[in-house]
Amino acid sequence: MHKKISLLGATGSIGTSALDVLRNNLDKFELLAFSFYSNIELGKEIIEEFCPKLVGVKNQEMAASLHLLYPHTIFKAGMDGLLAVATFSEVDVVLTAVMGSIGVLPTLAAIKSGKDIALANKETLVMAGQWIMQAAKENHVKILPVDSEHSAIFQALQGQNSRNIRELMITASGGSFRDLTRRELTKVTLQDALQHPNWSMGKKITVDSSTMVNKGLEVIEAHWLFDVDYDNIKVVLHRESIVHSMVVFVDGAYLAQLGASDMREPIQYALTYPNRYPLVNEKEFDLMQFHTLHFEDIDEKRFPMLKLAYKVGRLGGSFPTVYNAVNEVAVNAFIAGSIDYLAIEYLIEKFVLEHQELENLTLEKIIKIDQETRMKAQSWLDKNQFVGN
Amino acid sequence: MHKKISLLGATGSIGTSALDVLRNNLDKFELLAFSFYSNIELGKEIIEEFCPKLVGVKNQEMAASLHLLYPHTIFKAGMDGLLAVATFSEVDVVLTAVMGSIGVLPTLAAIKSGKDIALANKETLVMAGQWIMQAAKENHVKILPVDSEHSAIFQALQGQNSRNIRELMITASGGSFRDLTRRELTKVTLQDALQHPNWSMGKKITVDSSTMVNKGLEVIEAHWLFDVDYDNIKVVLHRESIVHSMVVFVDGAYLAQLGASDMREPIQYALTYPNRYPLVNEKEFDLMQFHTLHFEDIDEKRFPMLKLAYKVGRLGGSFPTVYNAVNEVAVNAFIAGSIDYLAIEYLIEKFVLEHQELENLTLEKIIKIDQETRMKAQSWLDKNQFVGN
Repeated sequence: MHKKISLLGATGSIGTSALDVLRNNLDKFELLAFSFYSNIELGKEIIEEFCPKLVGVKNQEMAASLHLLYPHTIFKAGMDGLLAVATFSEVDVVLTAVMGSIGVLPTLAAIKSGKDIALANKETLVMAGQWIMQAAKENHVKILPVDSEHSAIFQALQGQNSRNIRELMITASGGSFRDLTRRELTKVTLQDALQHPNWSMGKKITVDSSTMVNKGLEVIEAHWLFDVDYDNIKVVLHRESIVHSMVVFVDGAYLAQLGASDMREPIQYALTYPNRYPLVNEKEFDLMQFHTLHFEDIDEKRFPMLKLAYKVGRLGGSFPTVYNAVNEVAVNAFIAGSIDYLAIEYLIEKFVLEHQELENLTLEKIIKIDQETRMKAQSWLDKNQFVGN
Repeated sequence: MHKKISLLGATGSIGTSALDVLRNNLDKFELLAFSFYSNIELGKEIIEEFCPKLVGVKNQEMAASLHLLYPHTIFKAGMDGLLAVATFSEVDVVLTAVMGSIGVLPTLAAIKSGKDIALANKETLVMAGQWIMQAAKENHVKILPVDSEHSAIFQALQGQNSRNIRELMITASGGSFRDLTRRELTKVTLQDALQHPNWSMGKKITVDSSTMVNKGLEVIEAHWLFDVDYDNIKVVLHRESIVHSMVVFVDGAYLAQLGASDMREPIQYALTYPNRYPLVNEKEFDLMQFHTLHFEDIDEKRFPMLKLAYKVGRLGGSFPTVYNAVNEVAVNAFIAGSIDYLAIEYLIEKFVLEHQELENLTLEKIIKIDQETRMKAQSWLDKNQFVGN
């Protein structure tokens, strides 16, 4: 077997881990196409290492200048580039590791071209779960989760009838502020927020982990991915991040997937599914070393964003899109130092509560709502003082 | 679906739990045949409740007297009875819950009659693993484990390629003496031994749990059942008995099955495989209540019978049979109060070390070795004073 891969978002955290998986399995994979946005130095390295046929880049200027350097490679820019990478004719699996709502349309296009999807872009299901899962069904393509929690559930569900699911249990480390009270959160800084206890990830997702917005989005994704009601999805605090998630079946049996905190495992499983291969330079992991695993219920009052995620998930439509869009604007503002930590939650709640659903919702309307919400949230931030309150 | 079941050993601990599963799923199962040994009152109740077509009993007298009471039921005695129950023509699945080496031949006969086996008799694989697995392959029948540890591994392996197994991790509670030193074991009584921390089981298996002979036999069973080398089977101390066992795959991912300590779950899974159904009167189980799960390496010096099990397993042939046979004699003597606790280990080790393997081993020879070993061990005990040393 020699799977032909295209990779949307090659220079990010997931993209880099995915390239490591491909690099270590040249007998199994060929990277035919990829996209990146602005990290041109890393982009060049990837082109030189993997010799792809097609590369999607930020804009026409970048495409033109790279084509001078690599005349045998096709370069396409912007959304055209992403769509071309997603639908490249020989490709078997598209790994969508691009961040943000820009991932939705290329993923949908890939599905319609009959590509299996290794899904690491969370907006795809948060914004468009209904359309994506319907398209996947119609086009007989697999949606293979890459996120460690969803991969854990997916692994635990192999060989099981999904009608026999009683509950999905998504584990949460609790993030960098899990032991702080809400009162103590008024004082925290960006630097505090970036000290994640278990995983080394990008800034945005580390902050999302501390607010549990990340976990909330995972609940919404799990709802679509596994077709499970929100009532039957539970988030549990598990400080060690060893158990990546669990499935409880109707007979009371739990199946849990656990292991090292190494994103290459779920990435590789998605790409080699249903097979498994050793990870090169596998992170050392010994369950006996960890010795003790803790599980606790989550205090919804401490983590109001988790409760809100269930609410927007149940409301459906464009509510999850608003929740996610405002979060992105707010977290970026927090990372830029222009708002306090608790303002993230304030802003999300405000916009979600004020949101009016459109009638006859389409995917196009949702994408427009996403863009408008971002602009409204940004302009609201620009007009309001939010530091040091 | 209406599966036709026969049950070898209906009045024991597993048999009773199995009947509860059948009783609660009359729409799914029909008990066509069963056997019991000497508990005639319970045997009558089962006949009256389930109206089986065939019953195997201890001896001809019992068969004759029961036939007078239940003229529409066929009664057969002794090994003939067990074989008839195991091969009864309409039966789909034979649950072998009989204790001891008497289970081997009926199980083999059932396999040769094309019945799937729900396996709870450990001697079947310990003594005859090679023949049983070969016969199962040739006759295209499934061996469905009922033991909670093997069921956990079997559940975790669904939808996975068994070539991708790196290691099986069998969990052990450590039994009633897990926190005692070897020196402290010199003083323990039968009553102490029967205080198992997590499971309510028969006396024999509770003692076996404290010596880890039970765990050793499970390692040998797992070797045959899942075709995994002894080097790749590990036993880990897990005090809570919540995680029933785990599989580690070549990519470093673990899949663990966990839940309540309720034997009806693995029994029902074996009978309804690959489907799952709710357990009636399910034991309440909340992972959050347990809060903490511990995993520790096992000290081989503290539990020499575990190390010895690997040794007899690797030696193969009739060595596991000797190990098991002597254990049964010794534990019965301990339960009867005629030997001290530590004499169990002494006796097993002595007989295993002195055992001379026969050439051209057959299943018939192994069964003979089992019987001879029991007699030799018993007569050795009769000649030697073993209390209060």
